[in-house]
Amino acid sequence: MKIGFVGFGAQARENLIPACNALFGVEIAAICDTDPAKCLEAATLFKFDEAKIFSNHCDMMDKCKLDAVIVACYPSAHYQIAYDAIERGIPVLLEKPVAARSEDVIRLAEMAKRKGVITGSGMNFRFADVTERIKQIYNDKIQMISLRQMANKPVSVLWDYNSVLKSFLHAQTIHGLDLLIHLCGSVKKLSVADNSSDGNIIFSVLLEFVNGAHGTLITSNTSPHFTFDLDVLADDRLHIKSTSLSTISVADMDKTYLKGERKRWCDTWAVSPLSSGYSRAGYTGEILDFINAIQAGDRDSKTALSTLIETYRCMDAIEEQCKRVLAVNY
Amino acid sequence: MKIGFVGFGAQARENLIPACNALFGVEIAAICDTDPAKCLEAATLFKFDEAKIFSNHCDMMDKCKLDAVIVACYPSAHYQIAYDAIERGIPVLLEKPVAARSEDVIRLAEMAKRKGVITGSGMNFRFADVTERIKQIYNDKIQMISLRQMANKPVSVLWDYNSVLKSFLHAQTIHGLDLLIHLCGSVKKLSVADNSSDGNIIFSVLLEFVNGAHGTLITSNTSPHFTFDLDVLADDRLHIKSTSLSTISVADMDKTYLKGERKRWCDTWAVSPLSSGYSRAGYTGEILDFINAIQAGDRDSKTALSTLIETYRCMDAIEEQCKRVLAVNY
Amino acid sequence: MKIGFVGFGAQARENLIPACNALFGVEIAAICDTDPAKCLEAATLFKFDEAKIFSNHCDMMDKCKLDAVIVACYPSAHYQIAYDAIERGIPVLLEKPVAARSEDVIRLAEMAKRKGVITGSGMNFRFADVTERIKQIYNDKIQMISLRQMANKPVSVLWDYNSVLKSFLHAQTIHGLDLLIHLCGSVKKLSVADNSSDGNIIFSVLLEFVNGAHGTLITSNTSPHFTFDLDVLADDRLHIKSTSLSTISVADMDKTYLKGERKRWCDTWAVSPLSSGYSRAGYTGEILDFINAIQAGDRDSKTALSTLIETYRCMDAIEEQCKRVLAVNY
Amino acid sequence: MKIGFVGFGAQARENLIPACNALFGVEIAAICDTDPAKCLEAATLFKFDEAKIFSNHCDMMDKCKLDAVIVACYPSAHYQIAYDAIERGIPVLLEKPVAARSEDVIRLAEMAKRKGVITGSGMNFRFADVTERIKQIYNDKIQMISLRQMANKPVSVLWDYNSVLKSFLHAQTIHGLDLLIHLCGSVKKLSVADNSSDGNIIFSVLLEFVNGAHGTLITSNTSPHFTFDLDVLADDRLHIKSTSLSTISVADMDKTYLKGERKRWCDTWAVSPLSSGYSRAGYTGEILDFINAIQAGDRDSKTALSTLIETYRCMDAIEEQCKRVLAVNY
Repeated sequence: MKIGFVGFGAQARENLIPACNALFGVEIAAICDTDPAKCLEAATLFKFDEAKIFSNHCDMMDKCKLDAVIVACYPSAHYQIAYDAIERGIPVLLEKPVAARSEDVIRLAEMAKRKGVITGSGMNFRFADVTERIKQIYNDKIQMISLRQMANKPVSVLWDYNSVLKSFLHAQTIHGLDLLIHLCGSVKKLSVADNSSDGNIIFSVLLEFVNGAHGTLITSNTSPHFTFDLDVLADDRLHIKSTSLSTISVADMDKTYLKGERKRWCDTWAVSPLSSGYSRAGYTGEILDFINAIQAGDRDSKTALSTLIETYRCMDAIEEQCKRVLAVNY
Repeated sequence: MKIGFVGFGAQARENLIPACNALFGVEIAAICDTDPAKCLEAATLFKFDEAKIFSNHCDMMDKCKLDAVIVACYPSAHYQIAYDAIERGIPVLLEKPVAARSEDVIRLAEMAKRKGVITGSGMNFRFADVTERIKQIYNDKIQMISLRQMANKPVSVLWDYNSVLKSFLHAQTIHGLDLLIHLCGSVKKLSVADNSSDGNIIFSVLLEFVNGAHGTLITSNTSPHFTFDLDVLADDRLHIKSTSLSTISVADMDKTYLKGERKRWCDTWAVSPLSSGYSRAGYTGEILDFINAIQAGDRDSKTALSTLIETYRCMDAIEEQCKRVLAVNY
Repeated sequence: MKIGFVGFGAQARENLIPACNALFGVEIAAICDTDPAKCLEAATLFKFDEAKIFSNHCDMMDKCKLDAVIVACYPSAHYQIAYDAIERGIPVLLEKPVAARSEDVIRLAEMAKRKGVITGSGMNFRFADVTERIKQIYNDKIQMISLRQMANKPVSVLWDYNSVLKSFLHAQTIHGLDLLIHLCGSVKKLSVADNSSDGNIIFSVLLEFVNGAHGTLITSNTSPHFTFDLDVLADDRLHIKSTSLSTISVADMDKTYLKGERKRWCDTWAVSPLSSGYSRAGYTGEILDFINAIQAGDRDSKTALSTLIETYRCMDAIEEQCKRVLAVNY
Repeated sequence: MKIGFVGFGAQARENLIPACNALFGVEIAAICDTDPAKCLEAATLFKFDEAKIFSNHCDMMDKCKLDAVIVACYPSAHYQIAYDAIERGIPVLLEKPVAARSEDVIRLAEMAKRKGVITGSGMNFRFADVTERIKQIYNDKIQMISLRQMANKPVSVLWDYNSVLKSFLHAQTIHGLDLLIHLCGSVKKLSVADNSSDGNIIFSVLLEFVNGAHGTLITSNTSPHFTFDLDVLADDRLHIKSTSLSTISVADMDKTYLKGERKRWCDTWAVSPLSSGYSRAGYTGEILDFINAIQAGDRDSKTALSTLIETYRCMDAIEEQCKRVLAVNY
């Protein structure tokens, strides 16, 4: 499996390439970056000769016989690169945010479907250790999900975006929101309470899903730590808590615990202290699923661009409501 | 300070009376219960002679020279008892729910104001150890507060109420909702997502406060444990977490922690393993404040009935919205 | 059940009397203190007339028809008071330290046995919520127990003792050591590593029990928090952890957890956030067992003085070894 | 920096090579394994041509111009491989256990010193995130350290060893013991309480260090989880706790915490949920220090074989005492 990388920035170097390196049978066959300095760095690091380093992604796709392309550039550049890959029938995985605009996600998803090309996206939290486990714990369905997702960035405009709010939505909120939609499906109604000001973003979203479940997404860039804490109610008897992608506790109304006790006991899980961050945060699972889909040949990846359309639709709705709140208040 | 108790049920015996017993200068001077069996029990327990045991609360108020009355009966009985106490100028503390209807709370609060009588209520969580501490941690104001309040009851109708939902609102939600209002003030807007069915109650409320803050109250009766977990954002730089009325952690964007590090460190507090539940849950503080207000003579108690009107107004709004959701769905 | 208290200090007022008040059928019938100020305080607090307040414990025992006496004075005074109670056939519970010298414990235990009088002691940790639970978790026996018991006091000499070390042993170590002996039985061998200096006490004890188990007691007065953390290995397959008298986790080699997983899961228990400190720390259980033994009439209490002899023997051995270390080092 | 690997087993593939891959400027230049199947696997995985795959380590050392060799074979094979590397002046890092016998460690350390060759060893816990942090927290020195190190293996004889006990000592205990010695220095006295039987190993060690500190190492192979929990007392005022290589809490007698409180608060640190296991467990730091020492040229690595002699001496002493206990008991 020969993979070409477009964009040799921090995300590629620190997460995607190490995650690929840990997988058997995956070869990083070529690297493309428009910045000559980064090309040089890649060449030095991987001992690549000139034939494997490119400044133009079409050149790379045309000259190397690639099985897949992984793209981690500015979101506004993703559309053209993905277009060119799909056009050539090359499976393509786009890092998040996969695009700056919802229309682009929809168009690429349609094109990929038409051409029968497998796509993937950097929605690693869908494959996080805790996500995989939580999905196995309930039998029927989630009834309520609450996520507190805090960070200390971005506090200024990212990429070529025009607001901190949109940068925050596409850099942070996308993960939490996508996870809720991944677990509960399409959104019927969405209400936002926004308390942001200047570069400080603080808002909460109440989500009602088509399947009857509801959720809350509580998020901010004013917390020094990355927080990713979940509460889930399911099956009219389970209360699942998860903190920091590292722990899960499950309290079950119907379960008899040690020595016949029913209250104050629960089952708890903690990530192994020796586990890799790539696995815990889901990078390994995300790439592995993309590769498996390519090798299987008969299914799309679980992070296909089409699965992101609902997430983008909701990000747009949140942005819209935040702006309206802003307009009312000031 | 001579106190008379009306209602000798579990709440009085397990929480209120022990909390009073731990306070200096407080004498339990008389007990009234309409149930002769409970009167007998009280007589035996406190070695009270007949002169101190009553079946009629007016008798007790008229015959004993009481400094205050504490009432823990059915909510529907509270109105008349409180009325009779206020009428006589006797300070009165009503256990929660202080009344079955919002109108009654408003009327009693007005009457108490007119007569200049001090009132109090069993809103102990306002005085919980963690509440007291959290209030001291932020300088300016809370911007976001999220509370997960789970329980395993009530699952059937309580008192002489007519629905599990209202029983749940008045037995459980009242505490969490009141705490949010206590910390953030009046509510401007309130949206409910409800996923309840039969006796299983699961709903989330998005609250927007007049002061600009917002909050979420996530609650259910389908969890085997009592859960009371808070996240608070304040001052554009603080993320405060509190779990189980027992721990607090504070992460501060502007603080330099041990050895100059800024990330992944926080200040944490844990309740003393030897502390009393009365203090932790706020019973001691609630009664102490009521007594202090009586002795001071120049202020009302911090849990005066007037401070509960907003909480009742919001409980009514939640009940209304839940019913509407129910009507739409079925 | 009429109980007389000797010694109206902090321990009596804050822990023992409230714990008694929470028990049905227990009457605090008389209070004795050699300090007139404390007698006055007791009189005011409990509305006792003069006939129930005493400055001499023999007077109290002779004049009131007491079912039991609870003593919380200076340890050096306990011997005579207990002697006088046993002499009169009155069951007596001594707060810890029950005596300043091992000989006194042995003598009182022998006398109580000879006279057939029930005794008890303030070894509340034997009845702590976590202790009761841990005892039910293993089937066969504990193989290893490790206790970290930290405090910030005493840092100066207590009572009429002559060293900080002995004060620390009798005020703090007694609890942890007694718990280990309560759980594992008599001690075969005991090794101490001591790193104390001046008022700062830091030592660790390696204990080998007659039954084959071993344990470590790690203790100090240089920690700002009270710490009481346990690790227990039992049945060749259980690892039990307990922290702060508030949590228990149990990992079982042979258990299949949620979804068939065997690793990284465990059963956890957390004390109710509303529970009383008296129950959690074992005061309630300790007094209840003493009372139950008196009412049963056919057994001694579980904290009888005879059960403390081994604890005192080990405290003496630790003191001896610490002194020897000190002699070698300086 | 060209590195040759001897031994292409799980440790090399899962931890050492990924950790190397994450470092800039490190090239995996050759791989040697006596098992042809593993050679083939390595060739496929790294696209190495035949010239870079070896079945004889001397061949590899002689034919490739290596800057260093990393060895992860059976411990009994390490001596000869290390000997051949040192003989050739090639820096060599040995995975743990670096040797089956203390004599071998001593001989290799002496030889390396004589030849001026840099050595390293797989003592990754010395570089674990929590270790690095704990070392910065205290000013003066550690006074007490207690480690609970539990595992569920080995339960049978490893490598070509002749007992489960020695296998356990060299596979598990070595890490914990080495960390204590790394932090507190040479050991003056060591007492063991052993409760092992058959394949079940349970023992505790009381260690007295030359510098006056003392410690306890509590370990077993009967716990389903890997546990690595530390308590440290230092500077007569600090109580540091660390659990699972993932958290640290620091309670300081002299520190005033939030709002002037001194008790029940502490500073806590938690590993980032996105951090890599290689960094957390110290693999990255261990290899980086080895490489840095080679590049610096004027110092040995911090895990040089000479630094392991004390650890081996203590493992021998523990083994001896466990055997003696066994002899006495049975």
